Amino acid sequence: MSTLLPHLASRGVQVLVSEKAMLAADATAVTRVPERVFGERADLVIAIGGDGTLLYAARLVARHGVPLLGVNRGRLGFLTDVMFLTDVMPQDMLPSVDAALAGQLDADERPLLAAQLHGAPGQLAQGYALNDVVMQKRETGRTLDFETRINDHYVNTHDGDGIIVASATGSTAYALSCGGPIIEPHLEALVIAPICAHTLSDRPIVVSARSVIDVALLERPDTQAQVTCDGAVLGALVPGGRLEVRAATERITLLHPADHDYYKLLRSKLHWGRGSFER
Amino acid sequence: MSTLLPHLASRGVQVLVSEKAMLAADATAVTRVPERVFGERADLVIAIGGDGTLLYAARLVARHGVPLLGVNRGRLGFLTDVMFLTDVMPQDMLPSVDAALAGQLDADERPLLAAQLHGAPGQLAQGYALNDVVMQKRETGRTLDFETRINDHYVNTHDGDGIIVASATGSTAYALSCGGPIIEPHLEALVIAPICAHTLSDRPIVVSARSVIDVALLERPDTQAQVTCDGAVLGALVPGGRLEVRAATERITLLHPADHDYYKLLRSKLHWGRGSFER
Amino acid sequence: MSTLLPHLASRGVQVLVSEKAMLAADATAVTRVPERVFGERADLVIAIGGDGTLLYAARLVARHGVPLLGVNRGRLGFLTDVMFLTDVMPQDMLPSVDAALAGQLDADERPLLAAQLHGAPGQLAQGYALNDVVMQKRETGRTLDFETRINDHYVNTHDGDGIIVASATGSTAYALSCGGPIIEPHLEALVIAPICAHTLSDRPIVVSARSVIDVALLERPDTQAQVTCDGAVLGALVPGGRLEVRAATERITLLHPADHDYYKLLRSKLHWGRGSFER
Amino acid sequence: MSTLLPHLASRGVQVLVSEKAMLAADATAVTRVPERVFGERADLVIAIGGDGTLLYAARLVARHGVPLLGVNRGRLGFLTDVMFLTDVMPQDMLPSVDAALAGQLDADERPLLAAQLHGAPGQLAQGYALNDVVMQKRETGRTLDFETRINDHYVNTHDGDGIIVASATGSTAYALSCGGPIIEPHLEALVIAPICAHTLSDRPIVVSARSVIDVALLERPDTQAQVTCDGAVLGALVPGGRLEVRAATERITLLHPADHDYYKLLRSKLHWGRGSFER
Repeated sequence: MSTLLPHLASRGVQVLVSEKAMLAADATAVTRVPERVFGERADLVIAIGGDGTLLYAARLVARHGVPLLGVNRGRLGFLTDVMFLTDVMPQDMLPSVDAALAGQLDADERPLLAAQLHGAPGQLAQGYALNDVVMQKRETGRTLDFETRINDHYVNTHDGDGIIVASATGSTAYALSCGGPIIEPHLEALVIAPICAHTLSDRPIVVSARSVIDVALLERPDTQAQVTCDGAVLGALVPGGRLEVRAATERITLLHPADHDYYKLLRSKLHWGRGSFER
Repeated sequence: MSTLLPHLASRGVQVLVSEKAMLAADATAVTRVPERVFGERADLVIAIGGDGTLLYAARLVARHGVPLLGVNRGRLGFLTDVMFLTDVMPQDMLPSVDAALAGQLDADERPLLAAQLHGAPGQLAQGYALNDVVMQKRETGRTLDFETRINDHYVNTHDGDGIIVASATGSTAYALSCGGPIIEPHLEALVIAPICAHTLSDRPIVVSARSVIDVALLERPDTQAQVTCDGAVLGALVPGGRLEVRAATERITLLHPADHDYYKLLRSKLHWGRGSFER
Repeated sequence: MSTLLPHLASRGVQVLVSEKAMLAADATAVTRVPERVFGERADLVIAIGGDGTLLYAARLVARHGVPLLGVNRGRLGFLTDVMFLTDVMPQDMLPSVDAALAGQLDADERPLLAAQLHGAPGQLAQGYALNDVVMQKRETGRTLDFETRINDHYVNTHDGDGIIVASATGSTAYALSCGGPIIEPHLEALVIAPICAHTLSDRPIVVSARSVIDVALLERPDTQAQVTCDGAVLGALVPGGRLEVRAATERITLLHPADHDYYKLLRSKLHWGRGSFER
Repeated sequence: MSTLLPHLASRGVQVLVSEKAMLAADATAVTRVPERVFGERADLVIAIGGDGTLLYAARLVARHGVPLLGVNRGRLGFLTDVMFLTDVMPQDMLPSVDAALAGQLDADERPLLAAQLHGAPGQLAQGYALNDVVMQKRETGRTLDFETRINDHYVNTHDGDGIIVASATGSTAYALSCGGPIIEPHLEALVIAPICAHTLSDRPIVVSARSVIDVALLERPDTQAQVTCDGAVLGALVPGGRLEVRAATERITLLHPADHDYYKLLRSKLHWGRGSFER
């Protein structure tokens, strides 16, 4: 930030910063705005940081079509990193920002997931996710029993720690740790991946992105289930309630350098290929 | 067959049987035809048996748009079974055949894979597969080094026993045993699944069915690789050669009872759900 | 219980029931005792029910050498079931109880795990487990960073949902759902299985049962970790604290019918073998 | 070799080289010996190279108690590498050789596996393996049906590509690619790992190293199975034949630098730990 803010000021760019963000004492020439107007007023969002920062920025602008430039700083889990395809490293930040301002970066549209959590009667929570919507046990010692439906068609009754509905973008995040496949980012597909399923043949299912996925919790003593969108808590799923996940009509626009290469990033992050074995 | 042939005869149906098929001595009123004209002359194919039989029939009619009714007899591996969605059991055969003749079964179109195996210079072998095209080591003690490309874009250099390119239909066959996901049958997608990959992060990738997948073998002492289509040998892949897999323009039509339910079949074959734990 | 209690009464057996257990109104001729004296006073424990019941009974008698007869009633997850090797079905209960009273059942000694949870300075919680000691994230959206040591030797820094230390007995319970192997019950070994590890090569490790396993949590925002023994909460692991797991000096004695067959039970519970594919 | 041979000559060491090995034209002062006397005459074996070289050397001296120093040169698959724990890099070769000659390296005894392959009546082939004995399909398109027994006790009927019996040392080689666990090298255990099993719950089993494992092939059209020891072909397993694997009475002695650290090597080879995600 210490180099970025002066750089942007010198370019005559008005810099908006969320009221909630912490800034260094000497950060001047920025306009603090409430989170809720951020998406409306910004023309470009620059997210500098790790997992939380990037997914936070994605949620801020989810419904506003504002392009997002991620800069990969500090500790970035490789899974999230893959997801964002943020091959912009800190040393490339200023040139990348300039290129973004000049409209020279490639725009990469990604679908968002929309989650509707029907809790107690009359209660409804809604959220968006770029990566995944997760329903998971809240008490660590108790697995969950739950049912899944696709397009209102009964699929399975599961017993395990929970379930992930991930976008193609999110297929390389949490779902990958749960045995899901890599889905190329522009395939119009979702993956439904059980978490630590009791039944060993309860495997990830890849479905059309036009599918509506329903999850319902069965009654069981001490059952507690929590729903998160990209890791942020949406609420509790209770027996009798229902979690519905579908592709959102909104999309998010990520900005990439012109030489961006998805599989190169995967090779690097997943330590693929021969090179890694040689010395 | 002992009940089917008289039944068909009584219906006035002309029965074609491949010249290569073995028949009981008393099988009368059938017309033996060469394999190559089978697809042209038949209006409906009834395949009674297990894995080999069904995939064999699929290849016979692959390019001719002849619908295929599978009857699940004898030992049927559940994976193949799932693939064919042959919920027609022997006791349901005659009613199902009648329903097929009357045009009362549901037609289910599935894409085929087309494989081109470029061997020694000037040599080309071609094949079709409903399930999968597999490139695999021929000598059991030697793993293979090979490269994959998608749409002429380099993906990875692998070390392992081989690789599977499976259709959505074939995702529940061999690819599932190699850690691949279940892909719902009508999603226009392929899965590329490494077999016993040396690198543990070398995971299955799901790509668009419009992708062209290339596999090239690297030089290595004692390397021997074989390519199969639905388990039938297509030929050897050699260093310098190339295997190309893409969706075929042809499709195959499977016939299902009206109450056919894909996920019900999966639940049964994969022993899903609570019921299997109770007694 | 409605048949068991009269049966035991007719045999002249004094029946102890934990003060906490719920009994039918007409349950007579039983002696209610506090949990803590149960292990000292009982000569045989009969546990009728599912997961919770059986593991609860195991904890009651863990340090007292009292043999345990499990009767498999109601919904029993197959994993727990395998663990207990309770091939005693409800219809076999009375003969099995008689055989147990007559000393005709086979005694099967299983080691217990002892967990020491060092929390805030000066605080120590201790627990026993037959199956597993688990350290796991408490907030569903946040993975954990933690280090493992074996016999005070640094092994790895993990990022994921948590980690399981399972006995051979527990290898077919939660650890199996997390990619761990089946360990034959009398091998003197433990398995350390990461839960949904971020790093795909972070695989289960099988070590000697004489090993001491240490888990320490690293500082990270919002980190919350919980430790359970056989699913019962032991406490919270905090950065700076430490979880130590080792084999206990105490063992538990399970009673089996003379024709008990471990692999037969596995085949049944895991739906192994050809038979399951045929119809 | 160009530096090693003069170095050994200057130390007055007699250098034996297998008659089958290829040497540079200027390699002087070496004594060529037949393979079969190598184990008897050598006091120390130095194996420079990759997988094949090291496993070849292990077989040469398997029954003679000759210590083995592996030098990690050229392309070494990390799995084999882990197996051998050869943290001796080329630049450390001469000091390590001197240390070996001076008896300053740590000796690490590892058990060998002994395979007996009963083929056609009256035919018996025997082999040793440091890593694993593998029974695997020979025709790529055809899976195998086979039965396993442990200590003459029936375990399971499998359908798949084959099965691995691996030592603890070999647990990080082929078995790891097939879903097996890491077994610490001095645990007296074997792992039995199915290869691409048709049944998804057909998981690796860890058993005592004192176990005798039997594999028998079932009749099936076109079945062809091959048995290898550390990748070298032992022969064909046929229906009616039998493969028996057990721990050999012989052991092999690997030499390690004093600062050898098994888990450090694993962390490096498997790209474990936080460091690998940071840049």
